[in-house]
Amino acid sequence: MDEFITLDYGSGGRKTSALIEELILPLFENDALAQLGDGAVLEGADRLVFSTDSFVVQPLFFPGGDIGELAVCGTVNDVSMAGGIPKYLSLSLIIEEGLPTETLRRVLESAARAAGKAGVRIVTGDTKVVGKGACDGLYLNTAGIGTLACPGLSPARIRPGDKVILSGTCGDHGTAVMLARQTDLAEGDLRSDCAPLHRLAQALFSLGDGLRVLRDPTRGGVATTLNEFTEGRPFSIELEEEDIPVRPAVRTVCDMLGLDPLYCANEGKLLAVVAPEAAESALTLLQAFPEGREAAVIGTVSEAHPGRVLLRSGFGGSRILLKLSGVQLPRIC
Amino acid sequence: MDEFITLDYGSGGRKTSALIEELILPLFENDALAQLGDGAVLEGADRLVFSTDSFVVQPLFFPGGDIGELAVCGTVNDVSMAGGIPKYLSLSLIIEEGLPTETLRRVLESAARAAGKAGVRIVTGDTKVVGKGACDGLYLNTAGIGTLACPGLSPARIRPGDKVILSGTCGDHGTAVMLARQTDLAEGDLRSDCAPLHRLAQALFSLGDGLRVLRDPTRGGVATTLNEFTEGRPFSIELEEEDIPVRPAVRTVCDMLGLDPLYCANEGKLLAVVAPEAAESALTLLQAFPEGREAAVIGTVSEAHPGRVLLRSGFGGSRILLKLSGVQLPRIC
Repeated sequence: MDEFITLDYGSGGRKTSALIEELILPLFENDALAQLGDGAVLEGADRLVFSTDSFVVQPLFFPGGDIGELAVCGTVNDVSMAGGIPKYLSLSLIIEEGLPTETLRRVLESAARAAGKAGVRIVTGDTKVVGKGACDGLYLNTAGIGTLACPGLSPARIRPGDKVILSGTCGDHGTAVMLARQTDLAEGDLRSDCAPLHRLAQALFSLGDGLRVLRDPTRGGVATTLNEFTEGRPFSIELEEEDIPVRPAVRTVCDMLGLDPLYCANEGKLLAVVAPEAAESALTLLQAFPEGREAAVIGTVSEAHPGRVLLRSGFGGSRILLKLSGVQLPRIC
Repeated sequence: MDEFITLDYGSGGRKTSALIEELILPLFENDALAQLGDGAVLEGADRLVFSTDSFVVQPLFFPGGDIGELAVCGTVNDVSMAGGIPKYLSLSLIIEEGLPTETLRRVLESAARAAGKAGVRIVTGDTKVVGKGACDGLYLNTAGIGTLACPGLSPARIRPGDKVILSGTCGDHGTAVMLARQTDLAEGDLRSDCAPLHRLAQALFSLGDGLRVLRDPTRGGVATTLNEFTEGRPFSIELEEEDIPVRPAVRTVCDMLGLDPLYCANEGKLLAVVAPEAAESALTLLQAFPEGREAAVIGTVSEAHPGRVLLRSGFGGSRILLKLSGVQLPRIC
């Protein structure tokens, strides 16, 4: 840990890991937290999944979504990725003095629509207002409770030979928010993929043991999330670059700006690792939904180079993908 | 609703009610939310209590507590007031770039200590970092899950003749934070009462139907919380001014600054309305704990002046206490 917190600590990459592992975990030691999944699985008579996220995205509205929709989908997705069926959400507001009430109304309407779409009820909340300059318009927090439908999902279940599936195109959210911040012209093909993933997750739950782990690659992108799977484990993940779906507009923007779509945030995509014999079924299940139509097998788990994520290009070369280091774009969610 | 959100909307008083009732409730309509308790009681196989709060207190450290302890106690208390036994907490951080890591460590250590004291486990969390100037040091959010131990607590159960009990002195947190903001000399008798209330609440659960409702009088203070009990109902609450415990130092500061301790925030006190025949037992139960030693009956429910809260002074006069209007002190929690 450095002496001061820098923006890098919020990147979702290496510094965020350091903050969590060096400062937070030792203080709050318990089994549920130590899993470091998207949500905590609570042991008890009726097993529950519990998750939370704060949202500080800037701007509040962007092509394809807004902070209200994002706050609902983000927690719905985290509960789903932990094997839960999301049921109840809390919604907490930190509002900057002077925010137009109409802006707040639009955000809340959007959150309500997203909750309806995801089949969750917002049952409790909180409202704080801070003075001008003490926050940037509006920050939201959601926490979510779900019932555990698919226990045991964990990177520890991954085996060599398993297949890595991405439920659609990569990098849409990150590039859309970035362009929305730079210009008003960011419409057309560049839209956030912000969407609830509960249907895709629940479809995959039917694979039973064939489903190893689920995770939504938000901050830090696909590359960082896959590193969370391989870190300290006796296997690697080898990605085939040409199999990874990327929208042409996203690729163009990334090329122009020197970004890598594999490190750009997604808000409506999941990564699933599945047994080799379950891969075909998984694709069929995902592709039955509009939000999973472009699902693809993007890589394979291998015994070579344990702990690493490798990207094989179409020309036969391959390079190591590390966790995101530094911050590609702050306040992406 | 006004056209712009002002600090008043975060006061916990009338404007906060307007925001919740005019903007939020119509959008997220459901039974659990409509109760407007400190937490939501979730109906299901295993009944749960769910609550959330964001914390933006300024300064981060004040006599008697800090934002970390406050964030844990606040949600532990909300779950307890809704009839729950708090079990699991989430903890979400919004950190301003440049915050000293040592400051974050102190806050998190304090949160961990408070969680231990309250018997809850912090099982999930989130970390966001925003740029300099985009938040004021550190904002926290906690959400909490508890098992429902005392169903049915509600202002709707209050009957004329019932007694109103306050678990200790009034106005400590609000005055301590205010003085800490103005001066470094705010030590001595003026300390926040920040404390977990789970033990007091669980002791009162044993009263069964004799316990009508519990609520912790935070923002807006005792006067505002009691108005939430009487609003639109066929009874009033009559308080006896001389029965309300107030520390001499708190009274002095309030007199000097023209504040009313009945509107100052508390963070370690509960209000309980109990059946007349349960009042004596309730006091005995509360006074058995250090945090309830100064518990007192401060008023009675009456059929006169329905919907109102009245304060009777020692001289026989009485005045109406309305909900807090405007904001006495922003960012008190």
